[in-house]
Amino acid sequence: MELVHRESAEVVVSQGSRRVGVAVVGLGGAVATTAVAGLELLRIGAAAPDGLPLAGLEVAGGPVEETTGLVGYDALVVRGWDLDGSDLRKAAEQHGVLDSRQLEEAGPALSALTPWPAAGDADFCRNVTGGNVVLAETRRAQVDAVRADLRRFRDEESLDGLVLVNLASTERWPDPAAPALQSAGAFEAGLDADDRAITPAMVYAYAAIAEGVGYVNFTPSLAADVPALVALAEARGVPVAGKDGKTGQTMMKTVLAPAFRARSLTVEGWYSTNILGNRDGLALDDPDSLNSKLQTKGSVLDSILGYPVEDHVVRIDYYRPRGDQKEAWDAIDLVGFLGQRMQVKVDFQCRDSILAAPLAIELARLTDLAQQRGEGGVQRQLGWFFKAPMTADGSVPEHAFHRQETALLDWLAAGAGTR
Amino acid sequence: MELVHRESAEVVVSQGSRRVGVAVVGLGGAVATTAVAGLELLRIGAAAPDGLPLAGLEVAGGPVEETTGLVGYDALVVRGWDLDGSDLRKAAEQHGVLDSRQLEEAGPALSALTPWPAAGDADFCRNVTGGNVVLAETRRAQVDAVRADLRRFRDEESLDGLVLVNLASTERWPDPAAPALQSAGAFEAGLDADDRAITPAMVYAYAAIAEGVGYVNFTPSLAADVPALVALAEARGVPVAGKDGKTGQTMMKTVLAPAFRARSLTVEGWYSTNILGNRDGLALDDPDSLNSKLQTKGSVLDSILGYPVEDHVVRIDYYRPRGDQKEAWDAIDLVGFLGQRMQVKVDFQCRDSILAAPLAIELARLTDLAQQRGEGGVQRQLGWFFKAPMTADGSVPEHAFHRQETALLDWLAAGAGTR
Amino acid sequence: MELVHRESAEVVVSQGSRRVGVAVVGLGGAVATTAVAGLELLRIGAAAPDGLPLAGLEVAGGPVEETTGLVGYDALVVRGWDLDGSDLRKAAEQHGVLDSRQLEEAGPALSALTPWPAAGDADFCRNVTGGNVVLAETRRAQVDAVRADLRRFRDEESLDGLVLVNLASTERWPDPAAPALQSAGAFEAGLDADDRAITPAMVYAYAAIAEGVGYVNFTPSLAADVPALVALAEARGVPVAGKDGKTGQTMMKTVLAPAFRARSLTVEGWYSTNILGNRDGLALDDPDSLNSKLQTKGSVLDSILGYPVEDHVVRIDYYRPRGDQKEAWDAIDLVGFLGQRMQVKVDFQCRDSILAAPLAIELARLTDLAQQRGEGGVQRQLGWFFKAPMTADGSVPEHAFHRQETALLDWLAAGAGTR
Amino acid sequence: MELVHRESAEVVVSQGSRRVGVAVVGLGGAVATTAVAGLELLRIGAAAPDGLPLAGLEVAGGPVEETTGLVGYDALVVRGWDLDGSDLRKAAEQHGVLDSRQLEEAGPALSALTPWPAAGDADFCRNVTGGNVVLAETRRAQVDAVRADLRRFRDEESLDGLVLVNLASTERWPDPAAPALQSAGAFEAGLDADDRAITPAMVYAYAAIAEGVGYVNFTPSLAADVPALVALAEARGVPVAGKDGKTGQTMMKTVLAPAFRARSLTVEGWYSTNILGNRDGLALDDPDSLNSKLQTKGSVLDSILGYPVEDHVVRIDYYRPRGDQKEAWDAIDLVGFLGQRMQVKVDFQCRDSILAAPLAIELARLTDLAQQRGEGGVQRQLGWFFKAPMTADGSVPEHAFHRQETALLDWLAAGAGTR
Repeated sequence: MELVHRESAEVVVSQGSRRVGVAVVGLGGAVATTAVAGLELLRIGAAAPDGLPLAGLEVAGGPVEETTGLVGYDALVVRGWDLDGSDLRKAAEQHGVLDSRQLEEAGPALSALTPWPAAGDADFCRNVTGGNVVLAETRRAQVDAVRADLRRFRDEESLDGLVLVNLASTERWPDPAAPALQSAGAFEAGLDADDRAITPAMVYAYAAIAEGVGYVNFTPSLAADVPALVALAEARGVPVAGKDGKTGQTMMKTVLAPAFRARSLTVEGWYSTNILGNRDGLALDDPDSLNSKLQTKGSVLDSILGYPVEDHVVRIDYYRPRGDQKEAWDAIDLVGFLGQRMQVKVDFQCRDSILAAPLAIELARLTDLAQQRGEGGVQRQLGWFFKAPMTADGSVPEHAFHRQETALLDWLAAGAGTR
Repeated sequence: MELVHRESAEVVVSQGSRRVGVAVVGLGGAVATTAVAGLELLRIGAAAPDGLPLAGLEVAGGPVEETTGLVGYDALVVRGWDLDGSDLRKAAEQHGVLDSRQLEEAGPALSALTPWPAAGDADFCRNVTGGNVVLAETRRAQVDAVRADLRRFRDEESLDGLVLVNLASTERWPDPAAPALQSAGAFEAGLDADDRAITPAMVYAYAAIAEGVGYVNFTPSLAADVPALVALAEARGVPVAGKDGKTGQTMMKTVLAPAFRARSLTVEGWYSTNILGNRDGLALDDPDSLNSKLQTKGSVLDSILGYPVEDHVVRIDYYRPRGDQKEAWDAIDLVGFLGQRMQVKVDFQCRDSILAAPLAIELARLTDLAQQRGEGGVQRQLGWFFKAPMTADGSVPEHAFHRQETALLDWLAAGAGTR
Repeated sequence: MELVHRESAEVVVSQGSRRVGVAVVGLGGAVATTAVAGLELLRIGAAAPDGLPLAGLEVAGGPVEETTGLVGYDALVVRGWDLDGSDLRKAAEQHGVLDSRQLEEAGPALSALTPWPAAGDADFCRNVTGGNVVLAETRRAQVDAVRADLRRFRDEESLDGLVLVNLASTERWPDPAAPALQSAGAFEAGLDADDRAITPAMVYAYAAIAEGVGYVNFTPSLAADVPALVALAEARGVPVAGKDGKTGQTMMKTVLAPAFRARSLTVEGWYSTNILGNRDGLALDDPDSLNSKLQTKGSVLDSILGYPVEDHVVRIDYYRPRGDQKEAWDAIDLVGFLGQRMQVKVDFQCRDSILAAPLAIELARLTDLAQQRGEGGVQRQLGWFFKAPMTADGSVPEHAFHRQETALLDWLAAGAGTR
Repeated sequence: MELVHRESAEVVVSQGSRRVGVAVVGLGGAVATTAVAGLELLRIGAAAPDGLPLAGLEVAGGPVEETTGLVGYDALVVRGWDLDGSDLRKAAEQHGVLDSRQLEEAGPALSALTPWPAAGDADFCRNVTGGNVVLAETRRAQVDAVRADLRRFRDEESLDGLVLVNLASTERWPDPAAPALQSAGAFEAGLDADDRAITPAMVYAYAAIAEGVGYVNFTPSLAADVPALVALAEARGVPVAGKDGKTGQTMMKTVLAPAFRARSLTVEGWYSTNILGNRDGLALDDPDSLNSKLQTKGSVLDSILGYPVEDHVVRIDYYRPRGDQKEAWDAIDLVGFLGQRMQVKVDFQCRDSILAAPLAIELARLTDLAQQRGEGGVQRQLGWFFKAPMTADGSVPEHAFHRQETALLDWLAAGAGTR
């Protein structure tokens, strides 16, 4: 299926009467506040749908919302948790992503939202802490608190659908082979025993699945992608997707690498460095959190190219002058005809939250659509959005950007016109 | 169809007994001498098949040569014309593309080849001249000389197939609306009347088509893509393809632009500059030749993006320190979510002939395959190789790299296993 | 003398009671409006003295203002001419250089200023036109109008000193060898005869010199640097300085080239391209104006290096997405020990007016100081500010950044403590 | 004093009859083999003096060699130590710095040299080891062996002067406050007690000073710059200089930073990353050695700018595809007029040994000149060559490139014509 976008004037903002809740972990973060502000600015007509991949998309001869039942942007009701209990306007001002006009116009909507107390564990993300913590001493008690939040949210807002999206800062990984993570039963026992192999991210993922709430992991943290939770999601028929939003450098990598392969230009080395200065950058200044991130960033090249790139180096450095304006520099060494060498340098001066927020919004819409379609378990067709796409069976995921895109469009088309 | 390459050890160099002639315009140029040397180095096992997109390709479960009848690299017999009558070893030394070991190993094969006298017209390409000129005073006489060369080549080498590839330096464009270029009949009359609207490139294209020889235009010059020659190629059932090999900057552009579109990142401007110092660069130092090049480079963005990029600037500058090592710098301005701006810079330090030569080789093999299949007229499935792909009916061509790749693979697969 | 800056808190804004008028050609342009706004923001304490080279400078053991008599920033009273008669707040909004807070805070000061009608000639700068034109049909009449403006300005504001600064868009050059430009007498005759070799820039330069008003040419236009006006300035004892402010790429070039020379790294080629989208960029989109600019940019390398760089290419392209945010990309090819090659790439993402405005301000202060010191004629010690520094006798100017800086500091020190 | 170079044809290769030995630690390394090959190629006229800062330099109206007594390049006789006992031709082939013609022409001279057994300690430089080790079990015994080598070298070659240059790979630093390093007496006792605070680099430095041999530390290792050895050098009147050759990124930093300061452009952050793949890169892949390097690279900015740059990040990564072709990428954040931000990116694609070797050669000549002049102790005028220039009294060194250059030229001139 080929990509066709309509003129932006024709973007469908509203469609049908379905209301979908989006419960966000990290609601006060730069990505979440940008998403909330963006939805408000779209609603009041103060922003064009730039950066939203599905805005104006045509599927099966009509707007994707009309032919597939995908909810419009204004169907989304965003709430969530954060360790920092400031209201979202105050948070957004600190992040410095929105310009002053945008802060002004989205201000009332932002001020109206205050995060719920969050389930955190400073041991997993040392550089981001806060006092807005749920009073729950064990993993099980945290789960119960999160489930109660989800139920209350659904009831109070009369939601037709509900999706939980993890937009929190990166946690360090536990040992993925820890026994508590290997089966649903062991996980339940682990919750009761307050097993430290169960991370905060998993607490939220489990709570979502247990409540039948679609789950999206936009962070590099280990969460629904452990055997215990994959099995549970499949058993309960709950859609799960992740992990680690593919926004900047890795997106470019998965665009370029397939072309180098197609032209038989051998990648001898690929050096990638990133500098960023927002709260996520600060979180990654903790080596354990950084390690989680590097794992999800490192895997994409070899599977696209079909051979191991021995000199694939990825660096991330916290560098404050940039704030949210991340910069990614790539130096790529290619070998071409007759063994001769060439180089490509890519300098991507991007904005972390500006790239991430619209993807998180689209993921919420698409996960709700999967739920409407009754499709539970790992959502492979959403791999286009992630650096480390989940696969149900542990198989190697597709990383090539254009093939991921085709898979998504095909999935949308497959269910079009049939509701 | 998806791209699958075998290990390079399994590349099929030789397949069957078919011998295919490749008659090259510009045989002494950097691209042609690199291609000739490369074929020789492949034959003697002194080079790996880096940079050859079809090397090791699997189609329909087997090597593309076995399942489709595509000839192996050693089936190609290269000869051709050049205004400079030096033997190819001498020419290659001047171009400085091959390293000293390669010059040594391919030396005998290069020394053995001396270009045939060429049909030139200094009025169309002012900065590249030479004394190895065919003694023919009119367009018609030039055509006859070229046709005689083709027939003699076919007979002397007992060729089973024959393809003419234009690798000459860029000519200035004539007026594409000139009457002589509008129909086969008018063109014939133009040849007889020595009409100056008929360029040297067209003389070769016409001669090829008239002789039933497949034609490939790797240059930006206007040639088989005028109505007169398209009609003739269709009438005679001769495959024609072009124009302007998509090697460096434009290749990257057609890789990146579809991704920007898919992610709804609006391209506000795209500034491209190129510096190169080889004979092609010198040819482009003539504003008229440059203009031809800029036309073929300029068209790709808008059709991929679906909207006009008003600030799309393309510069090419002759800059001698680089020689054949072309450098392309792109500054791309993107607008993302909430109208916020981002930038991408791409610096491609490539080698003109190292990128071009393997594409020219693959085009010769593929055009011969089209001829084996009896498919005449414009070969749309070869658009992946060109900056300005020809379309038979004047429709807008596909420019997106990955969709062009799919079209080629589908075409290969369509005829696989059926011979 | 070595550069010593004080802490910014100690910057001397005000010094003594001297009031110095600055009459600006191009008062509504981006550089001038930025300078006016900046002086106001400094005055009210809403901006730090970033980017002002002399702010906080120590000379002879004290602040430069105290030891040399250099006037403080708040001694400057800015007025001037522009073809566009909009008030400066409106002009500044269009240029997009100031942020919204700065526009707000400097707003009253900007609104209060409206340019005087200007002496223009569309034949010399085709892409920048306007209706705020002085009603004067001949060169002589234009001169008289400008002189009247200067006298009125001096009287009404009770100025102690007066400097005229050309910040207008680039004009095309007349023939520098035109007879009218060769001597003071010929120039006077030319004014009377309305000789078209006399450009608008020269009208202003002549008027200033005739009125005993110091003259600074911040543009690439030919003005006080013709023999007629140099002679006149010397005869009248009026300081003149120019030309073409050295702000971005050329500044970097004159910083880097001396280092390459010192380390004996031979510059084999230097490719420079610029993209900008402000009114100056639009002016340079006219090839004749561009040509003036390229002449002043091209000369610096050879004199610094001591040998001709054959491949020194300079490009300027109008590219709207950037507005005032100019980007300069340099690709430098070096030859080092044993003839081996290296490359430097410099990408300067600067802001045209943000770099230029503070230099224009300092030039006004320094030219007034020269006038206080009774030093007329070409001010060589101001060469640090210019791409093409004037020299009285046509000798080759010093271009190396650090030697120019030393010359300026030495000149300041030479007169310190002596008033 | 200003820099004046003669035409390269006039370079003085030979001057007088003085023969100066250069004993190199790390003789088999990339820098040393390049230096040896380069001196040979200069001697036989097969190379131009590119990259040698003093080649063709005029001082006091004549060639520097004639007016100051600086020895010519062919006066240098190079020998030395290496942990790898291969002859220099074999070593040079592995480093891949010289091209095939250069290897050929300098081959006999390289083959003739085999390193003396070296004093190493794997504990200080883990990634570079070898079997060509001096049989000496204690620090004192190592010192004695090195001194014996120096005496033998001086006698056998009838040398008039002798300089020891450390070109070895980077060692990790010991604790600089270790008691053994604080006074000459404590150091002597430490040698006898085989104190591990005394590093291999110090063994060589001590041996040189004790033998009255000038000492140059081109590496980041701690050596003559501890109080014990500074005192000893002063007491014995032996010139010492260091440390860490200023070749690529840091050189550029000390060229650019003074200009930013002069123009009052505040450096808000400076991110520097380096990728290199030679033996030095491998040595730096050991975190302890890397740490030594980062210390010498980190200090330059603040002292030039006069304020602390809080976000000054320096990275070095081992990346094999580059071999000796180091690449340094700098992202610089500037604040200009009215607090507005600008960026500079510098990408220096250099060659480590090609930049370093000529500096090492010049340092040998200049240190011999200091010895001729009877100037012992720390040679501040050689700071231009180093990232972390030594100062006798622990004061902050001058880092600004152009002021260091002036200091060197002034020192040369001061002794010109007086011998």
